[in-house]
Amino acid sequence: MDLDEFRRNGHRMIDWIADYLANLDQRPVREPVEPGEVRAKLPDQAPERPEPFDQIAADLDEIVVPGLAHWQHPGWFAYFPAMSSPPSVLGELASAGLGVQGMLWSTAPAATEIESCVLDWLVGAMGLPDAWRTTGAGGGVIQSSASDSTHAALVTARERCRQRTGAAAESMVVYASGQAHSSMEKGARMAGFGHFRPIAADEAFAARPDDLERAVAEDRRAGLAPAFVGSTVGTTATTAVDPLRRMGETARAEGMWHHVDAAYAGSAMICPEMRGHQDGLELADSYTFNPHKWLATNFDCSVLWVADRRPLVEAMSITPSYLRDAASESGQVIDYRDWQAPLGRRFRALKLWFVLRSFGLEGLRAMIRTHVGWARSLAERIEAHPRLDLIAPVPFALVCFAHTAGDEATDALAEAVNAGGRSYVTTAAAGRRFIRAAVGSTWTTRAHVDRLWDEIAANAERM
Amino acid sequence: MDLDEFRRNGHRMIDWIADYLANLDQRPVREPVEPGEVRAKLPDQAPERPEPFDQIAADLDEIVVPGLAHWQHPGWFAYFPAMSSPPSVLGELASAGLGVQGMLWSTAPAATEIESCVLDWLVGAMGLPDAWRTTGAGGGVIQSSASDSTHAALVTARERCRQRTGAAAESMVVYASGQAHSSMEKGARMAGFGHFRPIAADEAFAARPDDLERAVAEDRRAGLAPAFVGSTVGTTATTAVDPLRRMGETARAEGMWHHVDAAYAGSAMICPEMRGHQDGLELADSYTFNPHKWLATNFDCSVLWVADRRPLVEAMSITPSYLRDAASESGQVIDYRDWQAPLGRRFRALKLWFVLRSFGLEGLRAMIRTHVGWARSLAERIEAHPRLDLIAPVPFALVCFAHTAGDEATDALAEAVNAGGRSYVTTAAAGRRFIRAAVGSTWTTRAHVDRLWDEIAANAERM
Repeated sequence: MDLDEFRRNGHRMIDWIADYLANLDQRPVREPVEPGEVRAKLPDQAPERPEPFDQIAADLDEIVVPGLAHWQHPGWFAYFPAMSSPPSVLGELASAGLGVQGMLWSTAPAATEIESCVLDWLVGAMGLPDAWRTTGAGGGVIQSSASDSTHAALVTARERCRQRTGAAAESMVVYASGQAHSSMEKGARMAGFGHFRPIAADEAFAARPDDLERAVAEDRRAGLAPAFVGSTVGTTATTAVDPLRRMGETARAEGMWHHVDAAYAGSAMICPEMRGHQDGLELADSYTFNPHKWLATNFDCSVLWVADRRPLVEAMSITPSYLRDAASESGQVIDYRDWQAPLGRRFRALKLWFVLRSFGLEGLRAMIRTHVGWARSLAERIEAHPRLDLIAPVPFALVCFAHTAGDEATDALAEAVNAGGRSYVTTAAAGRRFIRAAVGSTWTTRAHVDRLWDEIAANAERM
Repeated sequence: MDLDEFRRNGHRMIDWIADYLANLDQRPVREPVEPGEVRAKLPDQAPERPEPFDQIAADLDEIVVPGLAHWQHPGWFAYFPAMSSPPSVLGELASAGLGVQGMLWSTAPAATEIESCVLDWLVGAMGLPDAWRTTGAGGGVIQSSASDSTHAALVTARERCRQRTGAAAESMVVYASGQAHSSMEKGARMAGFGHFRPIAADEAFAARPDDLERAVAEDRRAGLAPAFVGSTVGTTATTAVDPLRRMGETARAEGMWHHVDAAYAGSAMICPEMRGHQDGLELADSYTFNPHKWLATNFDCSVLWVADRRPLVEAMSITPSYLRDAASESGQVIDYRDWQAPLGRRFRALKLWFVLRSFGLEGLRAMIRTHVGWARSLAERIEAHPRLDLIAPVPFALVCFAHTAGDEATDALAEAVNAGGRSYVTTAAAGRRFIRAAVGSTWTTRAHVDRLWDEIAANAERM
């Protein structure tokens, strides 16, 4: 495909995406596809001869679209949103077109400096501690996912604990709420920590700091090395908010690393009225949030901030001869490969830069507030319904509820809503089964939330 | 930005990319940019109000392009190529537009099944062991980078060693050539292995299997637990090829995991005449290669294959309540989140599918052979030049050479070539300093290789 064909096919692909998004509401949110069905449409071997792009593009409609759950569907209330937006997609496109590798400052200076700058902007925009800017002692870096951000924090914490205490990883302990994201336990296991201690949650699903203190004391008595506390602002199951300040105080008193996972809820912090949920951040060593969840930026774009960049870089830096250069050795620049596990990295800051500029902070705040408002109005209707229980507070835009008739009725309600094909919710369990309705997909409107409510209410009666 | 504006701005962005690529040869390969220069053009704070897309797009020319090293420049011979191609960029665009999350089969069935299928195609196309197909005991998965692939293999090997021997990670040993990629040592460190043992290389920079055997025996005597052997097909510095079969035999005899890093050279295996370099793969437990280096697919797209998927999934799988679903529990489907560190994943198989179909295997083989041919012809000219030494064999498309007058002259030669702005090479060291010229950037033609040679020859005389 030469550049003229690229232009022609590119215009067509842009139009295809616009049509796909514009018509999504006509499709079921989740296509009724069985295991193996997509694969059965594909040949057994790679083609020997080139295929015309027309044929390839046609298979988007023939094979791909009928085989998907449509995360960008306006009726998507499942999991957390995987937000995207037109400027973000164009930023991703520009990044793919430029095709630069930002492993070192010198291999793509603009990619590095725009990334540092945009993340420094967000420190201010989200009310985070000033020291987290790259112009201070800390700094931000874009990782692929919050799992990667948390894993990087865990590895750094492990190394710091080893240096300070001489303990082996097998005797180190990671603490996080039993409601924390699975990436906390998975990261701890990947990093070789010997122990992962789930902390009890209170009735609002927030970690109980007294249980953290008890567990740490017990582990100390057993001769183990408490190393890492993971707190969450907006847990995955119910968006509960852990008491950051108290957990941070415990971490500091015990010489542990304090990591804050705000993967979903972090985006809301661009609204000043939300920041009560992150009180105590000056006691955090690291913090992650995902613009690809709720800040209109398509996956992947997870931000990791550290209060002090030195231990991160010490844990992650290895410099072979083919990567040495004058700029790196001058100490004047950031080489982001030393802030992450992989060496290579694409220019992900571009889409975030496009989004922040295209929406402006005002536009993004309005978007967050709209979602929160819709979620609260949905929550009010659920609370008022005799057959439904709101099972958790709604600090952000996730509404968690159950059928009063018990777990089976709750699961049946979710299935009935999903079977309609116009809305899609997922379920989880915390003591009892419940339904999660996450408001915030890119193209969702008030009418879609109302439609979801109609489906919930109609089906709740029938259970 | 609504969908009509997206269409308009999208067409314009496609044209911008086409213009950028078409005119790259008029720009210096690496823009003369100083630390802080890009940042100085950016405001201190995020904009409050939305900015028009015209202004944002204009800054691609004003701020971004003058601040980059242009990896897609036809005069790019630095590092390894970061290949891209028109169909790949369009696949990336389609993936961003669809915006699906392929963490579970059920969250994006087509993303999972196309990924499995395309990687199964490559097993056949690259002459890899049949058992590596997902229809066999093994399977492939797309990771972000070879660092991630290798790290996943290391974590899996650590868990297997722990299960089999009861050893602690601190006493486990990872072996790899001193010429192996830095991700081997970095991954070992991140995964908490106590020891990384660089193996001596022979005069062609390939690992010496006798040194591996000696090191393993010594470590056994010292009570350590040999756990992992990393072999490389095409090392980063010189594209040396380790003796896979002997290293695999040692790994098997000693109960170690054998991982093969073919990040760069793997793409060449679509050409049958190259496969002598990978003899012994049936003794490998895992293998990684990067279509984003040399198979016309833009970053990120690294493939990891495992001969047996069970230990990988056992090491990586954690299933919280909000991720349980019927399809996963049926065992009929692959949930790729259990094959990688992060939970989230975008639809990266789409661009690889587009590339394989758009080029066809014939087209890709022709591309690889052309690059290899150009590299060999460059190598012949270097060998024939009285002031230049070819310092390593050229099995693929990387040419490594030094100035006969020593390290200073070699560095000066690289600087002189780069200062011209029309070609860009990087340097490395292995005993002596040398220049690496990697042929294979997407838009490079024979004429660009000849121009590079003219610049080398003219400057070599002057040193």
